Parts: sequence; structure tokens; C-alpha cells
Amino acid sequence: MFNFDEELFLKLVEKEGLAYRSQIEDIVDGICSKGYSNIFMIGAGGTIAMMYPYEYILKSSSKIDVHAEIAAEFLVMNNKHFSKDSVCIFTSVSGTTKETIEAIEYCKERGATTFALVAEPDTPITKLVDHCITTGSEKHSFDTFFMLLYMVVFRFMHNNNEFPHYEQFTKEVALLPQAILDAVKAFDKRAEAFAVEHKDTNYHMMVGSGNLWGNTYSYAMCVLEEMQWIPAKSIHAAEFFHGTLELVVEDTSVILLKGEDETRPLADRVERFAEKVTKRLTVIDTKDFAMEGISDEFRKHFAVSINWALLSRISVYLERERNHPLTLRRYYRKMEY
Amino acid sequence: MFNFDEELFLKLVEKEGLAYRSQIEDIVDGICSKGYSNIFMIGAGGTIAMMYPYEYILKSSSKIDVHAEIAAEFLVMNNKHFSKDSVCIFTSVSGTTKETIEAIEYCKERGATTFALVAEPDTPITKLVDHCITTGSEKHSFDTFFMLLYMVVFRFMHNNNEFPHYEQFTKEVALLPQAILDAVKAFDKRAEAFAVEHKDTNYHMMVGSGNLWGNTYSYAMCVLEEMQWIPAKSIHAAEFFHGTLELVVEDTSVILLKGEDETRPLADRVERFAEKVTKRLTVIDTKDFAMEGISDEFRKHFAVSINWALLSRISVYLERERNHPLTLRRYYRKMEY
Repeated sequence: MFNFDEELFLKLVEKEGLAYRSQIEDIVDGICSKGYSNIFMIGAGGTIAMMYPYEYILKSSSKIDVHAEIAAEFLVMNNKHFSKDSVCIFTSVSGTTKETIEAIEYCKERGATTFALVAEPDTPITKLVDHCITTGSEKHSFDTFFMLLYMVVFRFMHNNNEFPHYEQFTKEVALLPQAILDAVKAFDKRAEAFAVEHKDTNYHMMVGSGNLWGNTYSYAMCVLEEMQWIPAKSIHAAEFFHGTLELVVEDTSVILLKGEDETRPLADRVERFAEKVTKRLTVIDTKDFAMEGISDEFRKHFAVSINWALLSRISVYLERERNHPLTLRRYYRKMEY
Repeated sequence: MFNFDEELFLKLVEKEGLAYRSQIEDIVDGICSKGYSNIFMIGAGGTIAMMYPYEYILKSSSKIDVHAEIAAEFLVMNNKHFSKDSVCIFTSVSGTTKETIEAIEYCKERGATTFALVAEPDTPITKLVDHCITTGSEKHSFDTFFMLLYMVVFRFMHNNNEFPHYEQFTKEVALLPQAILDAVKAFDKRAEAFAVEHKDTNYHMMVGSGNLWGNTYSYAMCVLEEMQWIPAKSIHAAEFFHGTLELVVEDTSVILLKGEDETRPLADRVERFAEKVTKRLTVIDTKDFAMEGISDEFRKHFAVSINWALLSRISVYLERERNHPLTLRRYYRKMEY
């Protein structure tokens, strides 16, 4: 595949990602045996968006009190549910994100437990937190983080006696990298065709719900807007019908992300509407992919990873077709504000 | 003022809104004496956006467990924090919003307490809920709902021994309608100038944070998109720097909503950035308005109402300048999907 090293992917996501299982279990078990009041998942941009699936999963499957908070807002809002008994989870690719560092310092000063997943070793964040998993490579870091976060979140649920299938689930997490790779290969021609067709499209709507809302929000903001400079409105599938639908005409690009959780009927409804109105509807549906060896009941969770990996294929082809490097920035880390 | 009946506004928002104080206190006190585990604020589009300020206020000022949920998602996601001990709060202008009716039925079937604010009398929603305040007029219903929601939310906090200033606060709620009217009058020329300048602008960014995030989200989706068919990206002031900023060039319209809560520094940062980059930055700042008789410590809360009323003035001038009725729809309630 264009711009994709399959061996490296499997090495990083499968071999190295899974190597952290026992370390994650030790960390989570230690936190649980000490006791905690709630979980705060804190990030900015892509790293808060990455937490939304897990917030959704916890809210819909667990009584654990969970809060996903934007780092810069968390720092000033004085959230009354946060305390020294909170467990605060962060991810960072570079290990240097300013707001994340400040949020970690804030949490530590107040005696809360901090736990981060970081791609780069020896960074301010790896040194600062109480518990850290350092994956060692920026390549495929989001795919790896998603996999590690499954292990983290479902271990908390397991320890809270809310997830009896934990052993089976973690066995299947091990199958996920191959399932992602298979899906990506099956999707690749469609990703390329999308980029060719949409190389001059100057506005996209992205629609999703449930555990795919985070990807919807993130892809619009952190890829289409930040990395390709294309205006993109992310809109929750349920909320789509309360305003944004009025903009859809026959050439509006609507990208609908369909997963397999309880909220799928909300995406179905958007699909029924959009296919009547626009000729430029793109449906990206995890149901189209085999996920070899994955139990039916877990597919909905793994859809988050599958979906993100599919979207990432669109990115590399957009970069090529639009001749616009994904790393190009006008302002971020280039200008003071 | 153009298309604004001052007497009617004061009659509806001040006289009638305030008439409900003792009724609200009776309802909330009854719920509190019976006991409850948490508060769910449930809505769709404008009516979920309207809850976000109060969710923020509760999270930053109270230990009461609060969840703001999109009705259609709430109906399917099986939220594990919801139970028969939950208090579920709704608002509806028409009293007929389909998803809200379904959500109320869902809550009632599971034994939870339901409480709605409705503009129209004798509607499905007024008949369905356990407790209802019917304001009786669709005109200025959002302004009235905001005022009633202050009373509801702060009464819950008062009863939870978290708000010793309740008596003073409710006295000042009574001053709010006049403060809104004064602000609206002072802003009116600016609202008109905005609409004249932007009558052909085909894309806006709306940025806000804290207790103004709901208005930011709502105005972009429910007014600019739904009622004027203008694409509008709402973006949280903290998240703006993680993607959307890259789209800003010298003629990009950025509408920044500034309030007076703890998150104001996040909006300041957007302002510093945007004033360097675009010539079309519009800052709508509640600090510019007197709020006669309102204590400094309460201004931040009332900024939600003030801000919404100011934005509403922009709407009527956009309607006139663009010759596009605010009530015109392509699809909503006109097409099956």
C-alpha cells in the first residue's frame, strides 16, 4: 500500500503494543487496590478526542464515574468532582504538549494519580507522571494508544466487577492489529478514490455518534482542518437533524462514520436522509470489514480502532492528491499567541 | 428597536418568568426531600445546547452529579448512571419535539423524576412530565427558560448547602430582564452593522468556552446553519488552537463570544491570535454591558442570558439584510427521514 509499511505497523501496534499488557494491568490494579473516586481523561485536540470513545464506553457499560475534559478548560474551571482521589489519564505523541503538561502538574499538585501513554521516550510528560507507558515511536501512535486504552479502560471495568469477559477480550485485543491491517487493505482503493474525487472539495460535513463521535470530531478538526486546511463541520448524528441538515444540497460532501454500537440507528437515519439529498455521501462503515477472530459482542468497541485506521488512509491520499503535506502548518508552534 | 417589543419582552421574561419562582422552589424542594442520585439534562439541538451552561455551572460550583445528554443518543446508549433515582430536566418551546417526548417516556418508564419547562400550554410534554412549568408564550422562550433554569439549578445547589447566596441571587435574577434589555439596546447598532457587513459572508467560525460553549454551539448550528443556511463551525476556545486556527486568513469571519467565568483567559488567547490574522474578527463581550444591580460575583452566570439576547439581535438583522426568513426550512418537519 502507498505510504504504509505493513511490517512496521504490525511490529509497532501488535508486538510492542501488546507487550504492555502486564504493565498496564499492574498499574491499573495498583490504582484500584489503593482506591479512587473517579477517572478524568484529559487532553487537547486529538488527545481529548481520543478519550471520547472510552468515556462513551464507560458511560454505557460501567458505573465508574468518568469525566473527559479539555486540558486548558480543566485547568481553570475548578471542577468540583476532581480531587486527590481522582485518576487522571493522558496521552501525548510528542510528550511535550503544553496544556497537557500543565494539566498533569495541576493534578499532581493536588495529589491525584496521573497515568500517561506517550510515544516519545524521555520527554517532560514521561518524567512527570506517576505511571507511564512509553511506546517508543511516533509512527502509528494513535493506533497503539487506542489499543492500550482498551486494555486500561476494560481493566478498570474488570476490577469493578463489570466485565466478566476480560480474559477473552484481551485475547482479542491481540487480534486487532491484524484485523486493522486487513480492513485497511480492503479499504485502500476506496480511500484513494475518495481523495481523487474530493481533491478540490472545499467543505466537508463529518457525522458520527456514540463511540465514533471522537473520531468524527478529531478527523474534521485535526486532519481536514489542521493538516489539509479544508473547512469541516463535525456534527453528532443525533444533532445533525437540528440544524446542519439544512445546508445539505446535491453536491454537499457528507462523510458518515458508521460503527456498531447502540447508536448505529442514529447514523442509519442520517444515511436515509443524505442519500435522498446529496450525490456526494461517503459512508465509512466498520460492518464492511471482517475483523477475523473478533467476537460479535466486542466488534462495537474495536470499531473505534478500525474506523480511525481507515480514515488515516484517506489522509495519505489527500496529502498526495492535494499536494499538501500533512505536516504543513500556518500557525501552530510557529507563531506566539 | 427593529422587530423587538420591549414591553412584551419585560412582560414575558420579567413578570411572568419570575412568577414561577415559588413554583420552582416547591418542585425542587420536593425532589430534594425525596432524594435523588443525579441530574440528567436532556435535549436536542437548541434545547441540549441550552443545558450546557448549567452543566458547566454545576460542574464548576457543585458536587451534584450532572449529565447533559443528547436525547436521541440517551435513548439508545443505556447510560449506567441513569436510574429511577435520577432527576431528568427538559425544555421545549413547542412541547412536541419528538426525541424529547421519547426521552421523557423512557425516563418515566424507568421510574425517574421528570421536570420540564415548556412554552406552549397543553402539549404532549406538559401532560407527560411529573413537574412542569408552562410559560405560555413561544416569544422570548429561550430568554425565559434561561432565567428559570438559573432558579432551578441554583435551588438544587442551595438545597445541597453549596450556595449560601441563594436569596441574594434570586433577588438579582429579578433584575436580569431589565439588564438584558439594556444590553440589547446598547448592542443593537452593532448587531445591525454586523448583519450589514456580513450579509454575503458564506462561512463563520464561532468560538466560546465555559458557560458560553452552549451558546456558541447553538448559534452556529440552530441559527446560522438552520435558520440562515450559512455554514458555521463552532469551536471551543481551548480547542481552536488544535486545528481550526489553521483555516484563519485575513478575511475569515471569526465570532468570539466572551463571558466572565473562569475560562475567559481561553477566549483572550483566541482574541490575541485572531486580531493578528483576520480583519473580520467580531468580539461579543458581556463585560461591555452594565448589568445594573448585578453583583460582580454573579455576572459570570448571567453572562449566558446576556450573550444569548445579544446574539438574537444579530439574527433579526441577518434575516432582514439577507432577506432570508428565520423560519424557512428545506427539510426539518417537511420531509421524512
